[in-house]
Amino acid sequence: MNTKNKRVAIIGAGPSGLAQLRAFEALEKQGIESPEIVCFEKQSDWGGMWNYSWRTGVGKYGEPVHGSMYKYLWSNGPKECLEFSDYSFDEHFKKPISSYPPRPVLFDYIQGRINKSNARDFIRFDTTARWVSFDEESKKFTLILDNLKEDRTYEEEFDYLIVASGHFSTPNMPFFEGIEDFPGGVMHAHDFRGADQFKNQKLLLIGSSYSAEDIGVQCYKHGAKSVTLSYRSNPIGVEWPDGIKEVPLLTHFDGATAHFTDGTSEDFDAVVMCTGYQHKFPFLPDELRLKTKNNLYPDHMYKGIFFNDLPQLMYLGMQDQYYTFNMFDTQAWLARDYVMGRFKLPSKKKRREDIRKWLDRHDAIKDSLDSVDFQTDYIKDLIALSDYPEFNLDKVSEMFKEWLRDKEENILTYRDKTYTSVVTGTQAEEHHTDWMFELDDSKERYLAFEEEVEETVPGEK
Amino acid sequence: MNTKNKRVAIIGAGPSGLAQLRAFEALEKQGIESPEIVCFEKQSDWGGMWNYSWRTGVGKYGEPVHGSMYKYLWSNGPKECLEFSDYSFDEHFKKPISSYPPRPVLFDYIQGRINKSNARDFIRFDTTARWVSFDEESKKFTLILDNLKEDRTYEEEFDYLIVASGHFSTPNMPFFEGIEDFPGGVMHAHDFRGADQFKNQKLLLIGSSYSAEDIGVQCYKHGAKSVTLSYRSNPIGVEWPDGIKEVPLLTHFDGATAHFTDGTSEDFDAVVMCTGYQHKFPFLPDELRLKTKNNLYPDHMYKGIFFNDLPQLMYLGMQDQYYTFNMFDTQAWLARDYVMGRFKLPSKKKRREDIRKWLDRHDAIKDSLDSVDFQTDYIKDLIALSDYPEFNLDKVSEMFKEWLRDKEENILTYRDKTYTSVVTGTQAEEHHTDWMFELDDSKERYLAFEEEVEETVPGEK
Repeated sequence: MNTKNKRVAIIGAGPSGLAQLRAFEALEKQGIESPEIVCFEKQSDWGGMWNYSWRTGVGKYGEPVHGSMYKYLWSNGPKECLEFSDYSFDEHFKKPISSYPPRPVLFDYIQGRINKSNARDFIRFDTTARWVSFDEESKKFTLILDNLKEDRTYEEEFDYLIVASGHFSTPNMPFFEGIEDFPGGVMHAHDFRGADQFKNQKLLLIGSSYSAEDIGVQCYKHGAKSVTLSYRSNPIGVEWPDGIKEVPLLTHFDGATAHFTDGTSEDFDAVVMCTGYQHKFPFLPDELRLKTKNNLYPDHMYKGIFFNDLPQLMYLGMQDQYYTFNMFDTQAWLARDYVMGRFKLPSKKKRREDIRKWLDRHDAIKDSLDSVDFQTDYIKDLIALSDYPEFNLDKVSEMFKEWLRDKEENILTYRDKTYTSVVTGTQAEEHHTDWMFELDDSKERYLAFEEEVEETVPGEK
Repeated sequence: MNTKNKRVAIIGAGPSGLAQLRAFEALEKQGIESPEIVCFEKQSDWGGMWNYSWRTGVGKYGEPVHGSMYKYLWSNGPKECLEFSDYSFDEHFKKPISSYPPRPVLFDYIQGRINKSNARDFIRFDTTARWVSFDEESKKFTLILDNLKEDRTYEEEFDYLIVASGHFSTPNMPFFEGIEDFPGGVMHAHDFRGADQFKNQKLLLIGSSYSAEDIGVQCYKHGAKSVTLSYRSNPIGVEWPDGIKEVPLLTHFDGATAHFTDGTSEDFDAVVMCTGYQHKFPFLPDELRLKTKNNLYPDHMYKGIFFNDLPQLMYLGMQDQYYTFNMFDTQAWLARDYVMGRFKLPSKKKRREDIRKWLDRHDAIKDSLDSVDFQTDYIKDLIALSDYPEFNLDKVSEMFKEWLRDKEENILTYRDKTYTSVVTGTQAEEHHTDWMFELDDSKERYLAFEEEVEETVPGEK
């Protein structure tokens, strides 16, 4: 197959889309020419979720805001579990850093790898995909694009479509009786931008997953009067400090009073719904749309990537995630090899059987430890199929399990632990300030040496 | 022309879209058969902006929330200025009511007229228009629709497209230096849902139009510690009570401190940007998109309705508004008559000349009084072209001017004034409670007789 005249569209320039650009770049470095690649990014810069925005609701051009990140967000898993195997933290920072860096530091790392390439030349920023259609005869996709900055729409044809638009951007926000009369602020975690505005407030969080846990702890750390987490099925169940507690599901509001299924009730100043996200692809006709709940093995995709009804359509990063950047990489490398004709797909039936095998195993998952093993094996399966640099996945899997134990042991101090890189063997440094007392998440303060910050009051630059 | 086999798509079932359905219904009542009409509504119910939602950001299905309304919103203009000339307030409420009803009461009135018809049968709820294309050969529009509830997309062809999707839904939100580090909440007026959460807070509002004025007064009324309005060019300039003040434009934030162009600065707890809305039509290719700022005579539309490059495409209610429901009616009646072949369009050149004439007059507008006259004359021009029931526009125009004076005289009490209907001659009742002391905006309390509420503490049901 002559790939030179083929055209590849990537939707989204976040970690997954950038991984895809990097994958093609790695091949170029081997002297192998890429097809024509265009990456469409709705935001004005790359980084996806990691490109923090103060905006909520809709953005400058009236499109739904992509980012769900907030001030004071620190990695909630060890960085050693997400390290690129072809670009280490050591290579980027030139010195050991701690295992749980804040958002600006991780964003810096993501950008470090891609800044060394000419990836920016392939990205059309401020451009959203409005609609995609696929022509059965020409076997090509037609994309309708909207240049938001110029308020100009246009069409282009592509042979391959790689959807890397993420799935932590479209909030899932359930209705509770009486919520329309709750006097305080009600927001989804997607619109949470920082703990400061909840200082001295009694905060109700609905949910029991990462957002609830992290926003709860952040608000506690930054001075909320109390934090109450309401869970649907199971509590997070760690040992909470005084000031944070878990209660069963909210049944309804009566004014400022929230009532729970155990018959208790309490007044609150504000509500943050940490109720998860929807996989949403408004630009795709429903026969090409991935329709799934958030789980470790969404159906309909061979190797978790190739849309089984039409493998020219690929999805990256649509799984729920223990592994992140390194998983996107292994997916992007394989997607690239398929486009390049280096990876051949088996028949649709065979692909379906492979999907079925994974779905069956997925059904048998019992707990978090199983889940870690599942995703580890998924990545092992992928990594064997491309030349993405191998790394010790068993070791990373162990780290994830250690991290789960650390969190359970102490939700307030687990970020002070350190891990060892499987890419470089480097042992992480302890951060100069205990996480609970570190109120400044800037890169400058984070990278400062212990001597430089000794005199500083935590939280002051 | 045989209109029976024609198909008409209406996008939006708010006041404009409903007016369009009502216009066709009025003809049916005369025994004249309508073409096939389908109205697509993104929300689960009709009413557009008047269909209050507690949600902010994106809605249940991940689409941007349409509504910008909030608890305690009362009409900010006399109801006598927006009365349908074919369905009076008297006909609906069976008794005189005050001139400034709250949102639920006005919504009830809008629904009263349409509930009497079979309009609901023509509306597909939970359905958003994803993309529109126009075929030059067949002269038909193809609409790609997305049934949000069923997660199903499909296409349909139409001969006419009437865009009635409003233009007070997509916030315009400017950037100010330092805003990303402002510790309190930052929202656009679009996401403001009620004054309660700002109780005892120092609130900064940016803007000097209706939203700023009304949200400022609401928050003052419901217990904000202070309200500061920052204007770009000119202050609202009414006599503010202690606790509300106007300052020139914000230059930047430094933490919680806002700095203004006059060199003053002040700390705030929260910011609400009352900075207006964008005309936004993501479902239209840019050659069919109305591109305009918010003003009384957007360019490119003949009679403010017919897209001059393609009059099969019509827009309703895209003007800035003194007149509202009754203006949408006069537009809808004329759009209907064009579709029915009862109203013939002149040549494109003649239409352009007519548009030019209005644009020139628009350029000459000097103040609010001129603006009222301009829109009055615009509606006179329209009403003469269809059989929409005439009403005394000069009298309504006078009422608007009186309203402008009332507001200037006392921004806190103008809603206690009463006006006389030009449709029925009925003099409005005084509301049983002064607006400043009325903290309950429910229809039940509003419609209760004076005797029934005497014993009630304001704000308690």
